[in-house]
Amino acid sequence: MSSHPAPPDYVDVVVAAERIKGVAHRTPVLTSSRINGFAGAEIFFKCENLQRSGAFKFRGAFNSIAALAAEQRAKGVVAYSSGNHAQALALASRLLATPATIVMPSDAPAMKVAATKGYGAEVRFYDRYNEDREEIGRGLAEERGLSLIPPYDHREVIAGQGTAAKELIEEVGPLDMLMAPLGGGGLLAGSALAASHLSPGCKVIGVEPEAGDDGLQSFRSGEIVRIPVPKTIADGAMTTYLGTLTFPIIRRLAHDILTVSDEALSQAMRMFAQTMKIIVEPTGCLAAAAALSRESGCEGKRVGIILSGGNVDLGTFAKLTGGES
Amino acid sequence: MSSHPAPPDYVDVVVAAERIKGVAHRTPVLTSSRINGFAGAEIFFKCENLQRSGAFKFRGAFNSIAALAAEQRAKGVVAYSSGNHAQALALASRLLATPATIVMPSDAPAMKVAATKGYGAEVRFYDRYNEDREEIGRGLAEERGLSLIPPYDHREVIAGQGTAAKELIEEVGPLDMLMAPLGGGGLLAGSALAASHLSPGCKVIGVEPEAGDDGLQSFRSGEIVRIPVPKTIADGAMTTYLGTLTFPIIRRLAHDILTVSDEALSQAMRMFAQTMKIIVEPTGCLAAAAALSRESGCEGKRVGIILSGGNVDLGTFAKLTGGES
Repeated sequence: MSSHPAPPDYVDVVVAAERIKGVAHRTPVLTSSRINGFAGAEIFFKCENLQRSGAFKFRGAFNSIAALAAEQRAKGVVAYSSGNHAQALALASRLLATPATIVMPSDAPAMKVAATKGYGAEVRFYDRYNEDREEIGRGLAEERGLSLIPPYDHREVIAGQGTAAKELIEEVGPLDMLMAPLGGGGLLAGSALAASHLSPGCKVIGVEPEAGDDGLQSFRSGEIVRIPVPKTIADGAMTTYLGTLTFPIIRRLAHDILTVSDEALSQAMRMFAQTMKIIVEPTGCLAAAAALSRESGCEGKRVGIILSGGNVDLGTFAKLTGGES
Repeated sequence: MSSHPAPPDYVDVVVAAERIKGVAHRTPVLTSSRINGFAGAEIFFKCENLQRSGAFKFRGAFNSIAALAAEQRAKGVVAYSSGNHAQALALASRLLATPATIVMPSDAPAMKVAATKGYGAEVRFYDRYNEDREEIGRGLAEERGLSLIPPYDHREVIAGQGTAAKELIEEVGPLDMLMAPLGGGGLLAGSALAASHLSPGCKVIGVEPEAGDDGLQSFRSGEIVRIPVPKTIADGAMTTYLGTLTFPIIRRLAHDILTVSDEALSQAMRMFAQTMKIIVEPTGCLAAAAALSRESGCEGKRVGIILSGGNVDLGTFAKLTGGES
């Protein structure tokens, strides 16, 4: 259960856009003739890997803290996160002079842990396979009077994440399809709110790792399906169930959920490095990898794709892109 | 001697900007609070590594071919290049339906050779240490009636390269300093033409590899100094002398030449990958590496930096950034 159960709508995305203005990067939209030629589509990549803290998560994190009353902000915030939400919340906290405690899995990428600490946050580790991060987060919130900012199931988080799709559509015009990675559903729900308002008729599609298809199962069954922690290189999409706020929005406004293999993610990472000279983390490649598969239905369409993050250790990057010599 | 000996001025940069409009990418200008904090300066990175063909060279190449009479274009073009000019000319030729022959060093990075061939150009290899590429280029031009498009010492090439600085200053406003990599001088001369017109008082600084400081020697002595082929990881700045067109512009409009070590280039590459999630080739890091050194004089200034290219093999990238596991 979220501590902010009211579902967001498009107005919340507009408010979020005002709050993050001049603080979050308005990330570039990149295109590649070569990739368009390969996909037979006109693809617009919204580069949230180039966002502050290296991922779209900064949008929702900053929006959430900025929305708190001054008194709550002074006490501090707490979050549990597989990585990018942690860094984002740590950076947003520092910018808003709010103390932050982050509950992180002990197997989170070293780079993400280092960045979170580097932004001045306190890190509390937990065992991803045996402990309940939500319980730990709620415990810390109660003990210390902190505001819990969950990674996705929260009105201001969802609204903040929706600003990326809003910027994209405002910049390039209406789209036939908009594809975004799907973990807990914050980015996809926010994107769907923005697209349904700004580009009616645009098909909104979530993409998750093959090994963790709880989103697809939930979308099809109409109920939130829980799965064991999936093993995938997409460490930002290892969530095991959609949120009680994100799922209804996705069910109502998204059109389909696709899945991709880890191998397809590595291929996409290599393509982005070689062809576009950008570093995209495995999770960030989900939507792109799906778009480049023959079954995506992208051919002949104007397609927006959110590259959600770029936080990957250079060692892992070399291994996955075949760059190690 | 160039086949187009007339020196360019700012008007030629404006004409070039019109010619490349809608064809070249208007590349993003990225900023990083972390890097600003480290440098104590406000730095604007003009990301020509995200340009079509992976480098600023596309601007000058396209402008040069577009400036040819239709009859000349139909006969074809020839160029000698250490890599990025080759790819750029090959792509520009294809877009303008002009046959292209490229004279490339046999030790050019595999990725650059493959890309050049991939764009449909004919490649003629030569030995960088024992053969004269200009002679080979001129020979091919005479034999086959081709137009020679040299990599830097050419009016339309210089004017085209100047459009990157023009876009940068038009986007972010006047600068205190503008720093660009220096090889043969096309980018630096073009940048100086743009900056002197659009941001009077802006100090324009060229940066070359320590091992190949012919530009610095020439700038100080007032005469074009020739050096042996330098050994450096900055393969795009292995030129051994400035051009007869580029040198006078640089002498008149640039304010200083700095040099950086290969180690500083590797460090900068790593920083761009980790902090900004972009891939910048060694040569592309020249200006940034200088800006981040204490002697650059950047502190407290508004500084524009041109990241000139991103064409580096992923194996080399992993080796230089320490990403190999």
